[in-house]
Amino acid sequence: MTTIKNITVVGTGVIGNGWIARFLAQGYDVIAFDPAEGAEERTRNAVQLAWTSLEERGLAEGADQNRLTFAQTIEEAVSHADFIQENVPEREELKKSVLEQIDEHSKQEAIIASSTSGIIPSTLQSGMQNPERFIVAHPFNPVYLLPLVEVVGGKNTSSATIKQVCDFFESAAMKPLVIHREIDGHVADRLMEALWREALHLVNDGVATTEEIDTAIIYGAGLRWAQMGPFLTFHLAGGEQGMRHMLEQFGPALKLPWTKLEAPELTDELKERVIEGCESYAGDESVAELEAKRNEFLVKLLDLVEDYWPASKSLAKE
Amino acid sequence: MTTIKNITVVGTGVIGNGWIARFLAQGYDVIAFDPAEGAEERTRNAVQLAWTSLEERGLAEGADQNRLTFAQTIEEAVSHADFIQENVPEREELKKSVLEQIDEHSKQEAIIASSTSGIIPSTLQSGMQNPERFIVAHPFNPVYLLPLVEVVGGKNTSSATIKQVCDFFESAAMKPLVIHREIDGHVADRLMEALWREALHLVNDGVATTEEIDTAIIYGAGLRWAQMGPFLTFHLAGGEQGMRHMLEQFGPALKLPWTKLEAPELTDELKERVIEGCESYAGDESVAELEAKRNEFLVKLLDLVEDYWPASKSLAKE
Repeated sequence: MTTIKNITVVGTGVIGNGWIARFLAQGYDVIAFDPAEGAEERTRNAVQLAWTSLEERGLAEGADQNRLTFAQTIEEAVSHADFIQENVPEREELKKSVLEQIDEHSKQEAIIASSTSGIIPSTLQSGMQNPERFIVAHPFNPVYLLPLVEVVGGKNTSSATIKQVCDFFESAAMKPLVIHREIDGHVADRLMEALWREALHLVNDGVATTEEIDTAIIYGAGLRWAQMGPFLTFHLAGGEQGMRHMLEQFGPALKLPWTKLEAPELTDELKERVIEGCESYAGDESVAELEAKRNEFLVKLLDLVEDYWPASKSLAKE
Repeated sequence: MTTIKNITVVGTGVIGNGWIARFLAQGYDVIAFDPAEGAEERTRNAVQLAWTSLEERGLAEGADQNRLTFAQTIEEAVSHADFIQENVPEREELKKSVLEQIDEHSKQEAIIASSTSGIIPSTLQSGMQNPERFIVAHPFNPVYLLPLVEVVGGKNTSSATIKQVCDFFESAAMKPLVIHREIDGHVADRLMEALWREALHLVNDGVATTEEIDTAIIYGAGLRWAQMGPFLTFHLAGGEQGMRHMLEQFGPALKLPWTKLEAPELTDELKERVIEGCESYAGDESVAELEAKRNEFLVKLLDLVEDYWPASKSLAKE
């Protein structure tokens, strides 16, 4: 349950508009602010485009695009908000000054969240009068469809704020992931950035084209990643013994120059952390049970995705 | 069309068994060889487990698990084969010696493919009498469901072999991706290895647990990767101007320490290669059209995957 009623979104680019569409679809009143010329029209068009998908996902009772209003000043935008999501361009000084204005003009108990993909919360909250209610809430594009939101508190963020924000996002049909340590890029973008940089090296070295690299993802590992992350995937690759066997067998490959990224030393401590991590969250599901579930999913996913792949026809079933 | 009729699979671990299940489901006769104790029973059990999914995908006419026979010697296994898939453990000397036996005992026009995930074909074919018919064909687990197969020719592989192999895999409902340059790990595993190594660093540095890292993938970017690779994803993130705008806006982030992997210098040449690559294979589909297609897919995928995620309930629709 959440006590949040009035939502304000500051900064209406792709991410800000994504938040607005999601919040409206969840049945909230949303106030938006963006000083840019023509911002309101662009936002209403973006929400209109997102609405088709949101209707198919299922709108909350009373959800209405017309419950969005644009404010003329940041003060007017935030003064009555219970929750404020900031999405201005990714420049530290700009974000800090906007967040400090929000801090000054908002109710003291209002939650202030930043969509920053890379800046740590302790930096952003350092100039606030009430930093305990500030948090990083980093979403993924398209924000109105993808459930993940990384929730990162700073040195001065209260645990009550983290709890309240997680309850709120769950009530908005999202999957909040609390990141317990502040690092640049949080967690998800570090993983994506590693893959992205390796992909750029492959293009730069003339090994593969952008199309070939995308093909190498979507017809292979990409199909698994919608349901199972890299660790559980390797847990299954290890057979009945799971990750324990997998690390024995493929651990040595970490020494090979298969990427430009150097791997950490596979110490016994790291091994145990990885093995116990997989075993504990796989819970009492055996590798065989996880495989059966994965296969059932993959069969349905393949039927679905074939219509959306660039070259689906060549893979048509008999 | 393919002229391949008789298929032999040498080495029946997880990958070999995956190939056997796929080929049987496609209506082929398959001969298998593996000297290990109890190999035949393990293979028949693995094929039985895969069969449920393969039936749902749709079996080819005449497809039958009983069209699998085990040979007692490698000579007997390969002597009449049109296509031989090698899947012995990933040790260079072992693979070379097995491949040379296959080369010696098979028909001169038979195709010999290796499932190696990391060794380059020129190395593996160096000791063969008829290296022109050898190729790397690297699949992805589960081999009987995932369409991707990386096809890599060595210095002495004939272009006719590459063509023949691609036709064959397409007839087996797969997506052959021809890799034009030999590198350790080919292409897909380099991308996965970069993500995997970064994930291990995050666990090693105590930033996130294995479960948190998997969560950061499956509820976010992983949902996109089933249909759209990293390049086209960023092409969409760039708005109407696509990748050109995206590189302007996020290119500088390549300098940030967001991963342990150093990025290549974003030269004008690399920029153009990436931009033109995305634009050319996006073809005449605008970013808006690609977005609409992506959203339609994501809505259907979310309905599907919610039943298969570890924590699906918390994301239940209103």
